[in-house]
Amino acid sequence: MQLTKKSLPERLNHIYDAIVVGGGAGGLSAGIYLQRFRLSSLIIDKGKARSFWMQELHNYLGLPPDTPGRVLLQQGKQHYTSLNGDMLNGYVEEVVDEGDRFAVRVKVGRKNSIYPVFRSKYLIAASGIIDNLPPLEDMQNVFDYAGYNLHVCMVCDGYEMTDKQCGFIAGSEASIEEMVFNLSWFTPYITVFTHGLFAVSDSMRSQLHNHGYRLVETPIKKFLGENHQMTGVELVDGSIIPLETGLISMGSRYHNTYLQGFNLDVKGSNLITDKMGRTSHPRIFAIGDLKVGLNQVVVAAGDGALAATQIWRDIRRESGSRRWEENLAVSV
Amino acid sequence: MQLTKKSLPERLNHIYDAIVVGGGAGGLSAGIYLQRFRLSSLIIDKGKARSFWMQELHNYLGLPPDTPGRVLLQQGKQHYTSLNGDMLNGYVEEVVDEGDRFAVRVKVGRKNSIYPVFRSKYLIAASGIIDNLPPLEDMQNVFDYAGYNLHVCMVCDGYEMTDKQCGFIAGSEASIEEMVFNLSWFTPYITVFTHGLFAVSDSMRSQLHNHGYRLVETPIKKFLGENHQMTGVELVDGSIIPLETGLISMGSRYHNTYLQGFNLDVKGSNLITDKMGRTSHPRIFAIGDLKVGLNQVVVAAGDGALAATQIWRDIRRESGSRRWEENLAVSV
Repeated sequence: MQLTKKSLPERLNHIYDAIVVGGGAGGLSAGIYLQRFRLSSLIIDKGKARSFWMQELHNYLGLPPDTPGRVLLQQGKQHYTSLNGDMLNGYVEEVVDEGDRFAVRVKVGRKNSIYPVFRSKYLIAASGIIDNLPPLEDMQNVFDYAGYNLHVCMVCDGYEMTDKQCGFIAGSEASIEEMVFNLSWFTPYITVFTHGLFAVSDSMRSQLHNHGYRLVETPIKKFLGENHQMTGVELVDGSIIPLETGLISMGSRYHNTYLQGFNLDVKGSNLITDKMGRTSHPRIFAIGDLKVGLNQVVVAAGDGALAATQIWRDIRRESGSRRWEENLAVSV
Repeated sequence: MQLTKKSLPERLNHIYDAIVVGGGAGGLSAGIYLQRFRLSSLIIDKGKARSFWMQELHNYLGLPPDTPGRVLLQQGKQHYTSLNGDMLNGYVEEVVDEGDRFAVRVKVGRKNSIYPVFRSKYLIAASGIIDNLPPLEDMQNVFDYAGYNLHVCMVCDGYEMTDKQCGFIAGSEASIEEMVFNLSWFTPYITVFTHGLFAVSDSMRSQLHNHGYRLVETPIKKFLGENHQMTGVELVDGSIIPLETGLISMGSRYHNTYLQGFNLDVKGSNLITDKMGRTSHPRIFAIGDLKVGLNQVVVAAGDGALAATQIWRDIRRESGSRRWEENLAVSV
C-alpha cells in the first residue's frame, strides 16, 4: 500500500525483508520480484527518477517507442502495489547497520516533516543518479527542453541526433575527450560549448579543429525554441547559434549519501557489485545507475530481478523447507 | 524488413554488423539497440521462443501482469522492424568463422527448403532453451496446460502456486534435490512424480517422507482439466490424483548446435560470458537463457542492450571519428 504520514506508524515495528531506496525502473522491478517471492518490501521514493524526465523511451522492449518514462514508472508502481508492496514518498537520510538488520531513517513531507525509522534485513540501493545541467539564470529554460531534443544520454538518444546540428555542452575537458569523438558516430555536425566553465587545452583545440568541430567558450544565456523543441542557443554576448539537437555531458550527482558510512567498494563513483548486484556488504545490493555498468532503463529492470532473486535465495536458505504437516501427522 | 524466400537474395552480398540468432526477448532487445546504434542487423528466428508459451508474464516491468509473452514478442518485432532491422523466419544450421566475419547458413521453409548463407562481423547467440515436457502418448494433452497452470519456471510462477496442491514432475533425482525443497517456499503441498523414468534413492525417499511430500512413481497417463486449467493427473493404473497446479522440472534442450564447432567456454550447459555478454570468442556474444545466469525475460532484455552496446563500441573504435567536412574545407 501507499504509506502516508498517518498510516506509516503501523509499519514501524515491522521488519521488512528488504527496503528499496528509489522507485525508478530498477527499484520497481526489484519490488515486483520481491513481492512475488512472498517477501515483504518497502520502496522509498523521493520522486522524479531519471527515467521520469524521458519524454520518449525509445529502446525498452515491450513498450511502443514513444512511451514516456513516467508511463513505465506509473505502470510499475501500480504493478508493485497490486502485489501488496509498501511504497512511501520520502527521502532516505541515513542507514545504520544494526548487525542483522538496517535502520533506515526517512524524511517524510517537505512541510512539517517527520523522520520515521524503518527496519529491514536487506537494503537495495536503487536511488540512481541525476544529470548536472548547465547552470543558467533561468533554470526553467533548461527544463523546457531537457528530455525532449536536449538529451543527456548518447546511448539512449544518439539515434535521434543522427546527422543533426548538435550542441555538445561539456562539463570538463575530460567529458569532451570521452564523448565528442563517439558522438560523431551519430553526427559530425558538433559545436562544443564550455559555457565558460573550464579552460580547453591547446591539444584539445587542435583535435577539435582537425575534426571540423566548432568550439564556443562564451557562456550560454538561454536556449531558444518553442513547444519543447530547442532550435539553438543565445550566448551572453547576444550572438545566436542555431542547433537542431543537444547533448549535455556535465557529469551526474549520485543519490548515495545514505551509503557513505559503509565504505563500500567503488570504481570511480560507481558501486562494485557481483553478477547479482551484491556490493561488498553482504546485505546491501546496488542496481541501476549507482553500480558499475551501462546506464539503461532495461538493464536497471533486469538488475532489479537479479538482486531480488539473490535476496530471496539468501532468506530461503536461512529459513529451511516447509513441511506438509497433515501428511506428517498421518505418518506418525 | 521481414525477409522472404523471394526478397532474401538481395541480402546475400551484404555484410551485417551483427546477426542475432533467436527472436525472443533477448534477441529483439539486442536488435532494437543495434538498429538504434545505426548498425545493420539480421534477426533469424525459428519461432516459438520460450516466452511465446507464457500465457501471462507476471513480472516484466512496464507491462500489465496479465500480458501474454507473445504480446511482448509482437511489440518487440514491430519495434525492431520499424527501425529497419531485417528479420527472417528460419533455422540456423551452421556458423563458420571466416576470420573477420561469420558465414551463417540458414534453413528457410519447411517445404522446398532453401539454404541461404548470410554474413556478419558479429554473432549474438540468443536462441535460448526449451523445457523438456513429460513424454505422454498424446502430447497435445500436455500443451493444453503448459504455460497456464502447469508451469516450468519456479522463479516466474512460484507466486501463482502459493499454498496450492502442486504436482512436481521431475526428470531426475537431481532435479528433486535441486528444486523440491525450494518449491516448498511457495507451497508445502507437494506430490513428486517420477513418471517411472528413474529410480529414487532410499535417502531421497526418506527426505521426502520426513517433509510429508508424496512420491508417485507410476507413470502419468494424462493430465485432467478443462479450459487449460489442469485439475489433476490420471496414472496408467487408472488412479486419479487431484492437483491445483504443477511444476515441470525435466531439464531443457539448448538451441546451440550451431555453436558446437567453436569450443566456447561453458559452465555446465551454459555459455560463460563477461558482463557485456561476450563469450570466450571475441566476436560471439551470448544472451538470455543460453548464458550462465538467471533465466528471466527482463534479464534477457537487459542482456540484449549490453551485448549490442559492446558490439557498437567495438565497431565504433575500429571505424574512428567522423569529421565535419564542410568546416575542414573552410579551414584549409
